[in-house]
Amino acid sequence: MRFTQIWEGTYECNGQKGEYFPASVPGNIQLDYANHHHFGDVNWLDNCTKFKALEDFGWWYRTEVSFTKSDKERVFFVTEGIEYEYDLYLNGKLFLHHTGMFSRVDLDITSELSEGNLLEIYIYPHPKREGADECREQADQCCKPAVGYGWDWHPRLLVSGIWNDTCIETRSENTIVSCSHTYTLSEDLTSAEVTFTVDCPSPVTLELLDMNGKTVYQGNALHFRLDDVQLWWCNGQGTPYLYTWRVKSAGDCKTGQIGFRRVRLVMNGNAWEHPKQFPKTRSTPPITIELNGRKIFGKGSNWVNPEIFTGTITKETYENQLRLAKEAHMNLLRCWGGAIVNKEPFYALCDQLGLMVWQEFPLACNNYAGSDAYLAILEQEADAIIRRIRQHACLVLWCGGNELFNNWSKMTDQSYALRLLNKLCYELDRSTPFLPTAPIMGMAHGFYKFYSSDTDQTVYEIFGSSQNTAYSEFGVPSITEKKYLMEIFPEPVLNTPLPGTAWELHHAFGAWGTETWFCGDDLDRIFGVQDSLEDYIEKSIWTQREGLTFIFEEARRQWPNCSLALNWCYNEPWITAAGQSLIAYPCRPKPGYDAVKNALRPTMPSAKIEHFSYTGGEILAAELWLLNDSPTDVEDTIIVFLEIDGQKNEVIRWNTGLVKANTNCRGHKVQIPLPICKTSLPISLHLEASCGSSSYKLLLNPPKCAAVLPHQLNV
Amino acid sequence: MRFTQIWEGTYECNGQKGEYFPASVPGNIQLDYANHHHFGDVNWLDNCTKFKALEDFGWWYRTEVSFTKSDKERVFFVTEGIEYEYDLYLNGKLFLHHTGMFSRVDLDITSELSEGNLLEIYIYPHPKREGADECREQADQCCKPAVGYGWDWHPRLLVSGIWNDTCIETRSENTIVSCSHTYTLSEDLTSAEVTFTVDCPSPVTLELLDMNGKTVYQGNALHFRLDDVQLWWCNGQGTPYLYTWRVKSAGDCKTGQIGFRRVRLVMNGNAWEHPKQFPKTRSTPPITIELNGRKIFGKGSNWVNPEIFTGTITKETYENQLRLAKEAHMNLLRCWGGAIVNKEPFYALCDQLGLMVWQEFPLACNNYAGSDAYLAILEQEADAIIRRIRQHACLVLWCGGNELFNNWSKMTDQSYALRLLNKLCYELDRSTPFLPTAPIMGMAHGFYKFYSSDTDQTVYEIFGSSQNTAYSEFGVPSITEKKYLMEIFPEPVLNTPLPGTAWELHHAFGAWGTETWFCGDDLDRIFGVQDSLEDYIEKSIWTQREGLTFIFEEARRQWPNCSLALNWCYNEPWITAAGQSLIAYPCRPKPGYDAVKNALRPTMPSAKIEHFSYTGGEILAAELWLLNDSPTDVEDTIIVFLEIDGQKNEVIRWNTGLVKANTNCRGHKVQIPLPICKTSLPISLHLEASCGSSSYKLLLNPPKCAAVLPHQLNV
Repeated sequence: MRFTQIWEGTYECNGQKGEYFPASVPGNIQLDYANHHHFGDVNWLDNCTKFKALEDFGWWYRTEVSFTKSDKERVFFVTEGIEYEYDLYLNGKLFLHHTGMFSRVDLDITSELSEGNLLEIYIYPHPKREGADECREQADQCCKPAVGYGWDWHPRLLVSGIWNDTCIETRSENTIVSCSHTYTLSEDLTSAEVTFTVDCPSPVTLELLDMNGKTVYQGNALHFRLDDVQLWWCNGQGTPYLYTWRVKSAGDCKTGQIGFRRVRLVMNGNAWEHPKQFPKTRSTPPITIELNGRKIFGKGSNWVNPEIFTGTITKETYENQLRLAKEAHMNLLRCWGGAIVNKEPFYALCDQLGLMVWQEFPLACNNYAGSDAYLAILEQEADAIIRRIRQHACLVLWCGGNELFNNWSKMTDQSYALRLLNKLCYELDRSTPFLPTAPIMGMAHGFYKFYSSDTDQTVYEIFGSSQNTAYSEFGVPSITEKKYLMEIFPEPVLNTPLPGTAWELHHAFGAWGTETWFCGDDLDRIFGVQDSLEDYIEKSIWTQREGLTFIFEEARRQWPNCSLALNWCYNEPWITAAGQSLIAYPCRPKPGYDAVKNALRPTMPSAKIEHFSYTGGEILAAELWLLNDSPTDVEDTIIVFLEIDGQKNEVIRWNTGLVKANTNCRGHKVQIPLPICKTSLPISLHLEASCGSSSYKLLLNPPKCAAVLPHQLNV
Repeated sequence: MRFTQIWEGTYECNGQKGEYFPASVPGNIQLDYANHHHFGDVNWLDNCTKFKALEDFGWWYRTEVSFTKSDKERVFFVTEGIEYEYDLYLNGKLFLHHTGMFSRVDLDITSELSEGNLLEIYIYPHPKREGADECREQADQCCKPAVGYGWDWHPRLLVSGIWNDTCIETRSENTIVSCSHTYTLSEDLTSAEVTFTVDCPSPVTLELLDMNGKTVYQGNALHFRLDDVQLWWCNGQGTPYLYTWRVKSAGDCKTGQIGFRRVRLVMNGNAWEHPKQFPKTRSTPPITIELNGRKIFGKGSNWVNPEIFTGTITKETYENQLRLAKEAHMNLLRCWGGAIVNKEPFYALCDQLGLMVWQEFPLACNNYAGSDAYLAILEQEADAIIRRIRQHACLVLWCGGNELFNNWSKMTDQSYALRLLNKLCYELDRSTPFLPTAPIMGMAHGFYKFYSSDTDQTVYEIFGSSQNTAYSEFGVPSITEKKYLMEIFPEPVLNTPLPGTAWELHHAFGAWGTETWFCGDDLDRIFGVQDSLEDYIEKSIWTQREGLTFIFEEARRQWPNCSLALNWCYNEPWITAAGQSLIAYPCRPKPGYDAVKNALRPTMPSAKIEHFSYTGGEILAAELWLLNDSPTDVEDTIIVFLEIDGQKNEVIRWNTGLVKANTNCRGHKVQIPLPICKTSLPISLHLEASCGSSSYKLLLNPPKCAAVLPHQLNV
């Protein structure tokens, strides 16, 4: 039986302890401290900076251990994770030193117990590599998520503490301590050899039920063969079929779900045909997900921490956001390496919703040099991560971490940490593909804005001419809607979006160059200088919607040479003032979310448009496509309309003929002369079909003007 | 004590054994059979085809075990390798079934011995994957070298048997069964923590002596620290310093050598600066060898089996060829994955000569699908290979195998075999870099001819415009010199080089397209139709010399963006009629060898010439360079001469200024108008400097003519 404890906490600084205050478990001790000291909502104005003073504190948790037990039962301290380095004391006696927040601790403390048992946990100050600058570099010798050290969408705000489920558990000889499972599918995918590993001193029985509740196996043997297996499919391709298992002993029962799927990475469309010329290098490596023998276009987003205070993440936090991902027709989420490895409910929900998971280890944008001390912790943490997550049908890809083979990280294929991760994944879960990092050869990250002043190109030109096997990060920022900005900025700040203010703390300026992510300079160049904050917001939402629409649809049009598109990023850990996420904190879909939801419909008409803005008299050229990544054949007629100033005229009708399952159909290139006029106005290209409509909002006659920086404007 | 046995052998076919004949051990049973049945020299005419009939035989070896021993001694059967799958019987009793030719077997047979002990070894027929075509594909589920299944320079001729040292050994409690060593160098490379592992039941002492014979360590401890370490350097960069170790027990002594070096792969010149544009893929992986902290241009060749009958390879075979490699200023040999992993003396000699070794595992140009059975053998073999070779200072690179990520192999980064090899190398020798295959991203293989009719380019245009981090295979064929051809072809065959004759068996035709490697069509296009075999030979030698010169020098000019050049190939296993090797079988340097030796001089003048042939009146443009991959600074004056029809005129003098160690200096581009004349004649560009001279023999006014296939000629 599990017993929840009532915890208190306090800080320790220079050998001095503070007063104790109530501590939430699971939670983060810094948030407990902030609540006790009335920091106010971390989202408000510059409240996030108050946490800076806590960075180098040590922290103490304490509780009087409470439980009831029979004579034969033993008592365990169990935690799913404590961040990051800590000591455990019982009645003043140190009984564990542990480093690493993703590895479980499960300790028999029975013999240490007396009356009035004081359990104390000392949390060491956050790891910071000596000599490192005050940024993510400080995390390059630890397995703590790098994001808290500061990112262009996450404040510098470091948390720690008992962040995951932790309890006192009494166990009898009938207690089922743990159950885990592995399986091997037959080559034809019709049967599975299933093995359960159950930690229980007494005999157990195992039952497996299908989704109709029908028992398909029952017995004492923990290894059995399951025939006529129903396979787990990702969203859009079939049912995410899950069986329910029940393990029973004389006095205990545990239950869970198991899904069966085979996942491989296979070569992209024409990749084996290249290179053609001598001297000849290698072919581009595979990144097409083959699920149960079917090649699938991976479409989705990059998942980051849904909370700064990761200890407060619950099943509900995950569930609300993941349901939206499923509704947006996503089938793949990349759990980015700068973030936490998620808590268990995340993966159970992805299993249920058919969301495939690309799981990275906690390495991001650093050179994680392979010291023996670091490698030992990495091995322990990776081992725990692999053994836990490999049990989930949703897992389709292990990845060493984020952008490690680029010059802002400077790791290479020779880096020990990545070779170690390959080794561990091979040993513990070799049937799931492994990438050392993303991007690898052929894959690409970026661009992260709608417009590049370096090349004077919008995403239409940039992505319309690029040829990659996968776009695993790309983004278009928008300024946050005013209703949400009002939740974080008081009136005078709200109406003066300037660098150096709380706007900058909330990533509207200085995130990736002075003007990002507000991008007023880009908006000025495209639309002319805007009159008000509301106008900037409107224009930035316009670019985010159209930009994400273009990139997602273009990536899909490049199928099967391109097989994957994930925008940066899905969610956000707090209320940003500007940024690329689709879901505003805590779980409010932005207008960009709707655009992505549209662009990811399984079957839809699509137009490859050459540019975003046009001068009157120019030709608007657009190649027509029927996109179909559904598992069924389709046929449709697409009617094209151009709308200018409220006038909508039919341009062409195109019958696609039969389009096979998971195959696109490329159609005509329409070339529409635009009227000669001088006013600047939006124009829309509409595609209507029986499978649904698509609309693209473009710009005719952009005002000619130089960029004026927003902070020089009366906004 | 070791006892050599006298062996006999015979074949078994359809359950029937033949008569016994003398068998050489080590050797190959097929050669013993051929000698017994008077097949004649395998190099002669079509003698190689006689071995086809033996392919599916099983084979038996037998010997009466002979040795002397004291009462306390035990008796062992020891083999360094038997090819490929075999059973061992003693007195009719099966006592070992083994698969794999690179793993040692060491068995105590004392209890099985009686009087007149009959030791028999049954060699299974060559592994051939069911359903595979009769070519290297048959080897794609085994660890037997693929080359014997047929290659474009190796006949289809499969060998097996007791190919490596094999004996009966008696051991007392004082016998030193084996010694192995590992070490860790300090970060500043001045001291080493050395660990010896000695298999001996009795106490031993260890002594370490420097190259002057001075004892630098003596003691019973097998783990010790060595200060003031003299580092091992590759050829051209310093002394390949080796210490001698002696392990002594009361009645035994073993000795060997150990060298200390640190090797890393580091990024090539400007690789971190790319890619520059979004969407951004990864940077090109590192392939620059850093030896003891110094970045080195890897220059050398691809090493293949020096004999078809690999069992006959001795230390002398290796020594003669390796000395020539050292004399040609080579510092790196790639032990290609289609060949055997070499016998122990190869690596000891490379240690002594300063030849760095890139060692591949036995995978080449196939998709080695990861069945459990294959992976188990691969793991056993790789484990043995790594543990043996990691002890050699010469080893600088592990590589999974040859060209596995190209469409003629179709393996990928996800292939189990390669993930397993990465894992094993990490576990057993992680300080030596590992590549999954060659080429990887940025590296390149080919071109393999002087001229490409597809693009109408010679190697001057092809390599002059390519930018790769490493050229790990490239070649230019030549027709074998007539004096060697006379050793393999009788008169009428010799003078009729035609497809379908023994010329084709010896790879002059049909190797890589009808006309390769004779390449008469290419020679016709470049030089006009030739009158005689002698003329073709002369012209092909000319192209091989100039082609290899150009490519090696160009690769060196691209340093540090390019860091490695290895021509295909160094040696050959039999007398070919045409091919790319530098050394004719068995060990006779070809004219191309001299050209390469020239092109690899540590310090030398070099000219980047734009084309091989010119029309009178055109400009001969050549960029001047001083190449310096020596570890010392140099300065020189280069005088350029053009020689036409015996007339040599000075063009320019260029003083290089100070050129740093391991750095090149780029100079002027000379542009010389060529005289208008109609005769076709060689012209030479000469570069003279105090460090030596370089000459390039080019062609003025090539005859205009279409290619005429050689078999239509009166040659």
